[in-house]
Amino acid sequence: MAEVTTVVFDVNETLSDMAPMATRFADLGAPESLGALWFAATLREGIALAASGDARTFAEIGRETAKAVLRGHPIDRSPDDAAAHVLDGFLALGLHPDVADGFRALRAAGLRLVTLSNGGVPVAEKLLGDAGIRGDIEHVLSVDDAGLWKPARVAYAYAAQVCGTAPGEMVMVAVHPWDLHGAHRAGLRTAFVNRDGAAYPAHLTPPDHTVTAVGQLAARLG
Amino acid sequence: MAEVTTVVFDVNETLSDMAPMATRFADLGAPESLGALWFAATLREGIALAASGDARTFAEIGRETAKAVLRGHPIDRSPDDAAAHVLDGFLALGLHPDVADGFRALRAAGLRLVTLSNGGVPVAEKLLGDAGIRGDIEHVLSVDDAGLWKPARVAYAYAAQVCGTAPGEMVMVAVHPWDLHGAHRAGLRTAFVNRDGAAYPAHLTPPDHTVTAVGQLAARLG
Repeated sequence: MAEVTTVVFDVNETLSDMAPMATRFADLGAPESLGALWFAATLREGIALAASGDARTFAEIGRETAKAVLRGHPIDRSPDDAAAHVLDGFLALGLHPDVADGFRALRAAGLRLVTLSNGGVPVAEKLLGDAGIRGDIEHVLSVDDAGLWKPARVAYAYAAQVCGTAPGEMVMVAVHPWDLHGAHRAGLRTAFVNRDGAAYPAHLTPPDHTVTAVGQLAARLG
Repeated sequence: MAEVTTVVFDVNETLSDMAPMATRFADLGAPESLGALWFAATLREGIALAASGDARTFAEIGRETAKAVLRGHPIDRSPDDAAAHVLDGFLALGLHPDVADGFRALRAAGLRLVTLSNGGVPVAEKLLGDAGIRGDIEHVLSVDDAGLWKPARVAYAYAAQVCGTAPGEMVMVAVHPWDLHGAHRAGLRTAFVNRDGAAYPAHLTPPDHTVTAVGQLAARLG
């Protein structure tokens, strides 16, 4: 097997702590449980577009699904304003506490770091910039420039092309097993960040590595 | 445009009333809101497999996502037994009240009816058989025999092949806009069943027809 030179990080929920998104729904007077439903529905819609050969931005889809999941719940503002409040929450998220140290350890091990998100570049840039770790990342990439969302093969191929790296020298790092399954099918190695002890779904190809914090990857890959 | 000869119905939530699935989670001591999250997550997983070129059955994925969404909720039985209780709920669902009369009206208008589900054939057979309307349906089809879940093009192409019909003579009928988007991309006409006044998502191609009950389709297509 080729040596891993490049670590590709997913962004939403893998780097960012999305727990505050539940609060965004509570702010509107809706149940906090809509946070998880909204994110699952947004991914379902974006990935369904990928499966049918089309793409729209995360923000565009996220606004529509916010309005859809809020339907029937009495809220304190218009549907459009409510959707904007949800989407604005993405720009206010912070990193999981293990990420910054983990990036440093991976850089110290000589690895190149990039991000590849189904969300937009500006959201990732703000998340990394606010945390002062943008400099650790060589390329901040979005599927908006790939043509289809992950887990379509072209999304991972796009990252490999920008990096000038063979897929087999890259490892995809994510908290979402479906993302790792797609990366595996595209020829990348895979690493599952399992911060809360979840079981890996039996319907997907198991990851090459499982860690409970980003920093543990350095010893596995370095 | 070619005349429509064949009406292709989605099954889960389009024909079946899925409201009792929330009760399945309540039976376990978990929040009813998990019903919607479970279905969205199951679709996300199955469609993600389609986007990456793979397939597993609805039942296999549904069990895994049931265990995943129940994690962290105190429940009254083992995770495997809880997942089985959720999946068993699918076999106990009934039809929406507009479906049986709607089928009759479409048959009276000379249209051929088939079903195409991301779920298994046995679930659809039981739903239609229990309601005494199996005889209205010429083919009960599942993506299990197509290779990929809807909204991948091959799923719709498989239905056209079994029916011996050009996609342009078929109309896909569903409550799920992502399904209709995929059908449109595969060359079918589309009809959105909007029983509860939802807005059609702006990120998808609008349907050719929108009705509030299946029976209204007969006048539109006949």
